[in-house]
Amino acid sequence: MSSGGDGNSAYGHRPFERSRSHFTDRITADGRDGWPVTAGRYRLVVSRACPWASRAVISRRLLGLEDALSMAIADPVQDDRSWRFTLDPGGRDPVLGIRYLAQAYERREPGHPGGVSVPAIVDVPSGALVTNDYGRLTLDLATEWTALHRPGAPDLYPDRLRDEIDAVMAEVYEDVNNGVYRAGFAGEQGAYEKAFEGVFGRLELLSSRLAGQRYLVGDSITEADIRLFTTLVRFDAVYHGHFKCNRHKLTEDRVLWAYARDLFQTPGFGDTVDFDHIKRHYYRVHTGINPTGIVPLGPDLSGWRTPHRREELGGRPFGTGTPPGPVRAGEEVAARGRP
Amino acid sequence: MSSGGDGNSAYGHRPFERSRSHFTDRITADGRDGWPVTAGRYRLVVSRACPWASRAVISRRLLGLEDALSMAIADPVQDDRSWRFTLDPGGRDPVLGIRYLAQAYERREPGHPGGVSVPAIVDVPSGALVTNDYGRLTLDLATEWTALHRPGAPDLYPDRLRDEIDAVMAEVYEDVNNGVYRAGFAGEQGAYEKAFEGVFGRLELLSSRLAGQRYLVGDSITEADIRLFTTLVRFDAVYHGHFKCNRHKLTEDRVLWAYARDLFQTPGFGDTVDFDHIKRHYYRVHTGINPTGIVPLGPDLSGWRTPHRREELGGRPFGTGTPPGPVRAGEEVAARGRP
Repeated sequence: MSSGGDGNSAYGHRPFERSRSHFTDRITADGRDGWPVTAGRYRLVVSRACPWASRAVISRRLLGLEDALSMAIADPVQDDRSWRFTLDPGGRDPVLGIRYLAQAYERREPGHPGGVSVPAIVDVPSGALVTNDYGRLTLDLATEWTALHRPGAPDLYPDRLRDEIDAVMAEVYEDVNNGVYRAGFAGEQGAYEKAFEGVFGRLELLSSRLAGQRYLVGDSITEADIRLFTTLVRFDAVYHGHFKCNRHKLTEDRVLWAYARDLFQTPGFGDTVDFDHIKRHYYRVHTGINPTGIVPLGPDLSGWRTPHRREELGGRPFGTGTPPGPVRAGEEVAARGRP
Repeated sequence: MSSGGDGNSAYGHRPFERSRSHFTDRITADGRDGWPVTAGRYRLVVSRACPWASRAVISRRLLGLEDALSMAIADPVQDDRSWRFTLDPGGRDPVLGIRYLAQAYERREPGHPGGVSVPAIVDVPSGALVTNDYGRLTLDLATEWTALHRPGAPDLYPDRLRDEIDAVMAEVYEDVNNGVYRAGFAGEQGAYEKAFEGVFGRLELLSSRLAGQRYLVGDSITEADIRLFTTLVRFDAVYHGHFKCNRHKLTEDRVLWAYARDLFQTPGFGDTVDFDHIKRHYYRVHTGINPTGIVPLGPDLSGWRTPHRREELGGRPFGTGTPPGPVRAGEEVAARGRP
């Protein structure tokens, strides 16, 4: 996410409000919105900095969709035209041939009024955006793209657990995923304090829940874990200081820190995380709360690789499935982004 | 310290440079600068927010100078005329009768060119500033004001240890006391990183030094401990996030955290610390690095009261002396400033 709109202008004296996704078409097995699941037709555009986009990066890895759905990685630092492909040779995405993600939005709807956000899926033949609906996008990868999943792909959104997963995800979204943004972009003290209490109140409940069970719902990884993970992995690196969510660090909550390390060390999670992209994005883009643009050198990240002992709680990370294989060539996180 | 000058305008693209004290007269036993040590003649003006001023607050308590040297406590949030007495009835210091510390500076030197800083000592009869020389001021309390010390006052600057104390204090000043400011007010990445490395490099050395000995020099509290303490006690509350000194929190360094708690729990240290003043000062005054003025709710401060077990290292906190008595009435830290 982090469209130009909600990333930079939200901390006046208005409360922070996350923009709604403007393009909500779905890519489905039956193609009922005109976008059938097809190998090689679509391109997923992400930033490794963005927690909402990172959900899709992880899902794509876990489900083994790398061959079916290619991926473009935007520069973590947007300019005034938003997400751009300055990491690619010549500053253009090699598949779409565009410099800015905004060009795919324009192709879809000239003069569209909203911001430009990731994750986005673009139709490669037409170059037009299909969806930037981050809330639906990963659920569809899990449930509509099944024909293209790798053998051994986990079921990230099992039918029998959906009510519970949805309930957990709704609370995590409100208080944690989005709560840290409401805290960080608050324009006045009261709004900040309310968001802060929401963040830590929910984390405390989650910590209790996870004290005796390895994953949030059932005994395997689900979409709910992915969504909590993408916030937790950013917590000490950016939300603690930059967004003032500083009651304590993630590393000071024994249970959540072990839970986050467990996921980090699971293939498909930590191997998608680029702390360099994460830190540079938040600290350089949000000039309204960090006017100097200085990017902190801390925190020490070496703890992410330490033993977590969560396997003692039982659970099967991939259910009846198997872990994903190695990260595909060309998609590895650069050394300076790794702990 | 934190004069208007160095507090708020130092983070352009110039490196941060601390202003020199402009008024360096000394109050001495022999009165050679025209200011003889005299009970009741002078008033110490401080902010509990300011680490440089807090040295004097602690020294005054440890030495039992409360009756001899009265104390004015400024509002932690300066306005455009700098430190002010808005905490006092009618917004005036009851002894000096002024609204702004700047008025005592003006009385001393009309149109003086420097900033207004604390700690400051004012001559009550004339209402004129005597000194704002924070580096000398506490050494003189320890060595020139001896006739007015309480019975059992410690020797904070023992003659036989001065070379070692001076050497330690010089390193602590450069890398730690002032290093955190150079990091926080850096206008560009390289200057920040250099200061950050200085801070944590020095803390690592200090941590090794203090692993096997209770205090920095000798086996009792000295001026060197006071000067390190006033930075450490602010570390997690402001320097970690606000000044981006975030390799790790103080609480993550086992030795330094125990050392700081030991001092905090020693009469004369923690009973002078007001975390509310500290946080409001830094986060509200430095609009150049925290434009929203939001004051973080964290960190959780309850750890300051936990056992430290440093007494097992031996040492005598007050040497052959005794601890100070209770905080005098009217000088207690308000409940909301305490852990």
